[in-house]
Amino acid sequence: MRDVTEATATEAVLRTFAATSDGRLRQVMTSLVTHLHAFVREVEPTEAEWAAAIRFLTETGHMCDDRRQEFILLSDTLGVSTLVELINNRRQPGTTGTSVLGPFFVEHAPPPSDGVSLLRDGTRPTLRVHGRVAAPDGAPVAGAVMDMWQTAPNGLYDVQDPAQPAGNMRARLHTRADGGFDVLTVRPTPYTIPHDGPVGKLLAAAGRHPWRPSHLHVMIDAPGFRRLTTALYFDGDQHLDSDAVFGVKEALVVRPVPAAGGIDEVRFDFTLERAAA
Amino acid sequence: MRDVTEATATEAVLRTFAATSDGRLRQVMTSLVTHLHAFVREVEPTEAEWAAAIRFLTETGHMCDDRRQEFILLSDTLGVSTLVELINNRRQPGTTGTSVLGPFFVEHAPPPSDGVSLLRDGTRPTLRVHGRVAAPDGAPVAGAVMDMWQTAPNGLYDVQDPAQPAGNMRARLHTRADGGFDVLTVRPTPYTIPHDGPVGKLLAAAGRHPWRPSHLHVMIDAPGFRRLTTALYFDGDQHLDSDAVFGVKEALVVRPVPAAGGIDEVRFDFTLERAAA
Repeated sequence: MRDVTEATATEAVLRTFAATSDGRLRQVMTSLVTHLHAFVREVEPTEAEWAAAIRFLTETGHMCDDRRQEFILLSDTLGVSTLVELINNRRQPGTTGTSVLGPFFVEHAPPPSDGVSLLRDGTRPTLRVHGRVAAPDGAPVAGAVMDMWQTAPNGLYDVQDPAQPAGNMRARLHTRADGGFDVLTVRPTPYTIPHDGPVGKLLAAAGRHPWRPSHLHVMIDAPGFRRLTTALYFDGDQHLDSDAVFGVKEALVVRPVPAAGGIDEVRFDFTLERAAA
Repeated sequence: MRDVTEATATEAVLRTFAATSDGRLRQVMTSLVTHLHAFVREVEPTEAEWAAAIRFLTETGHMCDDRRQEFILLSDTLGVSTLVELINNRRQPGTTGTSVLGPFFVEHAPPPSDGVSLLRDGTRPTLRVHGRVAAPDGAPVAGAVMDMWQTAPNGLYDVQDPAQPAGNMRARLHTRADGGFDVLTVRPTPYTIPHDGPVGKLLAAAGRHPWRPSHLHVMIDAPGFRRLTTALYFDGDQHLDSDAVFGVKEALVVRPVPAAGGIDEVRFDFTLERAAA
């Protein structure tokens, strides 16, 4: 490894990981060094540009604390979170597609109840979401645990907003014997990812906006099935085709239709994938 | 960009940078996304592994402050700093090769003087380093500014060690009319890069050591020539072939020979590259 030149630099670094005993670490570092060096060779950063990259990473790290994860935002906005999610959720055809979990899921939402409302702050419901959870063969999945969470009309989740009662805009339901579920809520409000840090500056410099389109998060767990982490997106949102974090799938876009009592209605049926034996 | 799949995810992200007006940013982000996604597709990280990567970057950021730059250490130990340095210092054959600057250069070293000692703490000199600075055609370069800096016998630079007088183990010289220089010092002591942070943990997990071989930093500036940032490495150091930051070049390795008065001697001639017109 003496006499490292432009031609030999990558090979020299790779050789230092060749004897790493942890096979997975060896594989990851080998791939990382290969692709990182290929990037550097392609863009040929000036020393000032490389220093700017170091500063960007440092500021991104300094932005992270218990309530803010700027590196996850970076991963989200570069499509890496979605790519990792897709790789880890290859699903059989005919089952419902996944979508990004996001940072706002809360493990212990307020008391579970069936057929209820997500609204705990006195907001009048204007949307009914109902449907059925089924196996690939169409058999109903009874007693599946369904978590749903979304933003309030001010564009904030309860955990971001001390003015909302805890558990507002969240529910944990159990599907009925026929696999059915039925909840009342309002249409989720679109919001921006936090953009007052280095990642927001990068998006602005690149001419990208920080908006996520209106969506209702859904997570479904049932014994014998793979967990489904997904979201329903609402037709008509202007950012459906430019989601800042690349989460929208056409099959997850819903179109509310007017129903009785001034309440719009969305019907959506979920199909779970059977867990591997 | 609706309906992002494993097959289309990279293209979807690239499209968001296609309209970036800053051409260089567009080029860099396009290359970064391409290679970052290729890395993710190759290693297929689990969600737990991706979370561990986010934690590693966050801890690396939190380790950075005014006195510690953990992201530069990461860049150094992955060979990226050396690669960037090599790309930015393509030199004509016959001129002296470059080596990594490192984080310990001080712009305003104590008063310049010619033909002096680097030792300001009373250490007895045991090494003489002398030679000539010349142009590619052999013409002497008079009045070139030469900075030299190295570790003290305890393996620390003065800026790391409150017990050393400021400017210890540093000198700024001016070459004589014949291009000559001549300084007294001691053999630099090898040292480890800081390894009590995330980068040190990564090196340990990979089975790599954190040592840099014994070296004397040299920077030479002269009007009409490209700045030369380099270092002399000392033969016999056990880490010459496994420098943690990939800086050693065979042509920069020196072999001290015994001279008069119990002082070893190193002769090294530097050849500068002419600046572009």
